[in-house]
Amino acid sequence: MTGTLYGVGVGPGDPDLITLKAYNLLQSVPVIAYPAPAVGDSLARQIAAPHIPNGRREIMIRVSMAPKDALDRSAYDRAAVEIGDILRAGQDVAVICEGDPFFYGSFMYLFNRLEEEFPIQIIPGISSLMACPAAALTPLASRNEVLSILPAPLAEEDLRLRLSQGDAVAIIKLGRHAEKICTILRDMGLMAGAKYVAHATMPNQIVGNLADIDPADIPYFAMILVRRNEVAG
Amino acid sequence: MTGTLYGVGVGPGDPDLITLKAYNLLQSVPVIAYPAPAVGDSLARQIAAPHIPNGRREIMIRVSMAPKDALDRSAYDRAAVEIGDILRAGQDVAVICEGDPFFYGSFMYLFNRLEEEFPIQIIPGISSLMACPAAALTPLASRNEVLSILPAPLAEEDLRLRLSQGDAVAIIKLGRHAEKICTILRDMGLMAGAKYVAHATMPNQIVGNLADIDPADIPYFAMILVRRNEVAG
Repeated sequence: MTGTLYGVGVGPGDPDLITLKAYNLLQSVPVIAYPAPAVGDSLARQIAAPHIPNGRREIMIRVSMAPKDALDRSAYDRAAVEIGDILRAGQDVAVICEGDPFFYGSFMYLFNRLEEEFPIQIIPGISSLMACPAAALTPLASRNEVLSILPAPLAEEDLRLRLSQGDAVAIIKLGRHAEKICTILRDMGLMAGAKYVAHATMPNQIVGNLADIDPADIPYFAMILVRRNEVAG
Repeated sequence: MTGTLYGVGVGPGDPDLITLKAYNLLQSVPVIAYPAPAVGDSLARQIAAPHIPNGRREIMIRVSMAPKDALDRSAYDRAAVEIGDILRAGQDVAVICEGDPFFYGSFMYLFNRLEEEFPIQIIPGISSLMACPAAALTPLASRNEVLSILPAPLAEEDLRLRLSQGDAVAIIKLGRHAEKICTILRDMGLMAGAKYVAHATMPNQIVGNLADIDPADIPYFAMILVRRNEVAG
């Protein structure tokens, strides 16, 4: 009997935004793994900290980000081997993920490496896509609106095209691309009304109108919400 | 002191996919409201049922759906008056919503009617957008992919254009529009690889390849997931 690999969303930051299902799993699973930067703490581990019992085996997957957002895949190769050995020995492993495992999550890298050999279950989590509109008190999309999620690293022409088409747009992965995004939104007349949320549901959460924010201050974990056609009702 | 209006996501169906935050609120809030069809039970009420203590004041907002998806707005007008009276008297009211309140949710109609007069807090929920990929074991979007959410009632030309552009697409609100969607996907060579999920996380959940599903059997609460460029990694 091999163990099951769980991809567990722990939500956007507020530890209470974890689901009962994820909470219950963390109380019983013997091994908990999580990604972390090359130096420093794991965000997923920090979010879930109040819910992780003492004495669990923990596996920290340190991933260094090379320049240009290239990823050190060998870290996932090694982690897949380590986790695979545990699963093969019959123990379950929960990989905890900030937000949701399948919404732009790095869990994908482990999933791709382990899905053929092992049973996998995903426990969905509250992603930034739900947390940011809640924090900004701004409906994300409604009725027959088209909702587009645009990663800010996309090329400028591509961003302009898609911003001209979406009814509701959430722009993610901002950081050093924020200046470019703000310029485009200003050019297109979309700056007024654009909402800005950083670190949603965390103690350092910032919510405001994008027009009031200095693009140089915008971190990676931030979102811009644009609605082209406000819906009455 | 007026009460606070809470928009509370209770998740896609599995009662354990409610957040601790929503669960805790339901234990203490004196009034719980929910939408329901003209006849029959409230889906949100059913999902949250195990978590609602006895003796709460409950408000059922019955909304009849006229032909052509037109909505009986007067139901929300009346509910806003009733809820407004309770808030004005100083009691908090939780409006529970299947999925997430701001992701194509009908909570918007109460929000629009009450936001100017009362304090509002949103507790985000697990939406079908997270639950369906989890059920299908299919990553939703990753890296710099553009994710588009397309309501199936859109015009055919519009759907074709957007399907030709998105890297990852989730098609929602299927039901009687499923036949049209399947024809478009087949024409565009996107049927192979398209995943289908109905009633995600509920006892009657169905997961499969869209090619194996009869469009006539597809309900409103279903999702089709299309990825045009599978990402290696």
